[in-house]
Amino acid sequence: MENRIYNFNAGPAVLPISVLEEIRDSFLNYDGSGMSVTEISHRSKWFDNIINDAIERIERLLKLDEQFHVLFIQGGASMQFCMIPMNFLKKGTVADYVNTGTWSTKAIKEAIILDKKVNITASSEDKKFSYIPRNIQFNKDSVYAHITSNNTIKGTQWTSFPDTGDVPLIADMSSDIMSRPLDMSKFGMIYAGAQKNIGPAGVCMVIIRDDMLELVQDDLPSMLNYTTYSSKNSMYNTPPCFAVYTIQLVMKWLEKDIGGLKNMEAINRKKAELLYTVIDSGSFYKATAETDSRSLMNVTFRLPNEDMEKLFIQEALENGMAGLKGHRSVGGCRASIYNAATIEAVEALADFMKTFEKKKG
Amino acid sequence: MENRIYNFNAGPAVLPISVLEEIRDSFLNYDGSGMSVTEISHRSKWFDNIINDAIERIERLLKLDEQFHVLFIQGGASMQFCMIPMNFLKKGTVADYVNTGTWSTKAIKEAIILDKKVNITASSEDKKFSYIPRNIQFNKDSVYAHITSNNTIKGTQWTSFPDTGDVPLIADMSSDIMSRPLDMSKFGMIYAGAQKNIGPAGVCMVIIRDDMLELVQDDLPSMLNYTTYSSKNSMYNTPPCFAVYTIQLVMKWLEKDIGGLKNMEAINRKKAELLYTVIDSGSFYKATAETDSRSLMNVTFRLPNEDMEKLFIQEALENGMAGLKGHRSVGGCRASIYNAATIEAVEALADFMKTFEKKKG
Repeated sequence: MENRIYNFNAGPAVLPISVLEEIRDSFLNYDGSGMSVTEISHRSKWFDNIINDAIERIERLLKLDEQFHVLFIQGGASMQFCMIPMNFLKKGTVADYVNTGTWSTKAIKEAIILDKKVNITASSEDKKFSYIPRNIQFNKDSVYAHITSNNTIKGTQWTSFPDTGDVPLIADMSSDIMSRPLDMSKFGMIYAGAQKNIGPAGVCMVIIRDDMLELVQDDLPSMLNYTTYSSKNSMYNTPPCFAVYTIQLVMKWLEKDIGGLKNMEAINRKKAELLYTVIDSGSFYKATAETDSRSLMNVTFRLPNEDMEKLFIQEALENGMAGLKGHRSVGGCRASIYNAATIEAVEALADFMKTFEKKKG
Repeated sequence: MENRIYNFNAGPAVLPISVLEEIRDSFLNYDGSGMSVTEISHRSKWFDNIINDAIERIERLLKLDEQFHVLFIQGGASMQFCMIPMNFLKKGTVADYVNTGTWSTKAIKEAIILDKKVNITASSEDKKFSYIPRNIQFNKDSVYAHITSNNTIKGTQWTSFPDTGDVPLIADMSSDIMSRPLDMSKFGMIYAGAQKNIGPAGVCMVIIRDDMLELVQDDLPSMLNYTTYSSKNSMYNTPPCFAVYTIQLVMKWLEKDIGGLKNMEAINRKKAELLYTVIDSGSFYKATAETDSRSLMNVTFRLPNEDMEKLFIQEALENGMAGLKGHRSVGGCRASIYNAATIEAVEALADFMKTFEKKKG
């Protein structure tokens, strides 16, 4: 099929083939408009349908009630790292952050740059971020508590979410959004850069609860103020139309082809199991995350030595499997198996891992 | 050809057909990668080639010397409205702004929200923004002077740029970037939301001079600091890859198919002349901009009454010409004839205008 490769990139990442085909097939003439989807006005009926359909599908998939607002904001999750403290932390107030790796650390750093008060409530830095902290005591006076739900670099993931009492929980879900059902009653806000599980790079989905919008500080620049997006259906200025369109199609695929988030989770569990089973079957491969904190999205592992890892990555590529290099900050190997990674692709990788181990182990 | 329409949208706007075809044809397998361009890593050799080729072409087209840095930032020109004062205006310093319409007004508003000192050096508000002010005396102590080079809503454009002496000139060129050669020695920074002349919505091109980077304030959030982008080749975090890719292809089209900005300007002058000639030939159509301030990009005009305008827009659409409605804030008609609008399309519109006038005038 068009000489496609099995793509295990950490992000931007694989998208469902049916989504790519639909984009390609209508690219010169979107829905009878005589224009490409990149050429239609964001004020047109076509784009209105795209953005509203995307939002409705997200609402259905996550079972959002009307308290929640779905926004599309540019700048990736990294822009949220500064928008969150800017919008919610008045002078003299404080927020809790749990530090589970590179991305949490960056979120904390941006709050500190803004001279906001930050409480590191828990951290797994003591063991190189190889686990998710448990039994955390959150600060009752915090305006919000922030976590990173899945950690792409260290391959850890919150299997259940912490109880923060009355403190609104905010989660960066860039790398596991829509990979499993969510109990949204726990969250004041979640956000996700699209380029891992729901679309291309260039848009961040933000889901925000009414009461969080009431906390928004006055006198923020328009583009950095959540109410600008909530009051204008994310179209105060021209939104990243192509990225929103792709999200719409991925949501359609999730609903129609996959059948919702429960099914998606079952598939994701099966895929992760295929790889962790190979890893755990001997001593050749070694998972980097503690067993009870392992990610279903990013399977990180080491081989006996770095030369062997290089060879593994190279031979995998020769066998049609790309993107297996670990993050440059930690090395090793990583298979990112987001929603659109197929069972077929993961089976091929599991088989390759077994063969490679037999040959070299 | 795929039932394409003549597209006169103000933005997002028409793109060169050869660019759209190239995107479509390689959409499932970019350059032998086995992945869509939306699925490749931004740290891959493929994306490195894309972003660097885009930058080199921009440098050649605008004859930039090494003082200038080409950056890609998300959030559109509207995000620049706040980033500019945030980055360049220390407490107690002031900037000049020339107000030539809606977009200049918004740029000024964002500086004021940030509690920055702004000098409205000149304005054409006295005549409903129908002209570009001349002989402006800029404030010698200003950190920068800001203008909007082309005004999409009122159809005016700076035909030549003002002398600001030692004060760096910053221009929002969202709607006429790459439409004509530029003498970049006049500018400290220019910026342009891509979705009119150079690509899809979702990225803003910023070209910034070394000395402006030295002005950047400390302690800005990473994503709002120009040096974050200049020091990491716009890849501190995941860039809007698809939008940058499309810009690369549009720049290739400008160099290879059009033959550079001098040729582009000649074509744009010819297109604008076709329409203004029809408008000026009688009293049925009336241009809204003063003659010496008319835009080559957005031809704005009125008909004898609003009913006639509605009919004109409707019949044009029935004849395969879309996007002719004026901006909702001013009404009337507008033909946006950006770089990718073909002479053929503009000739068809000019002919339609003559026929419509004969029938109704």
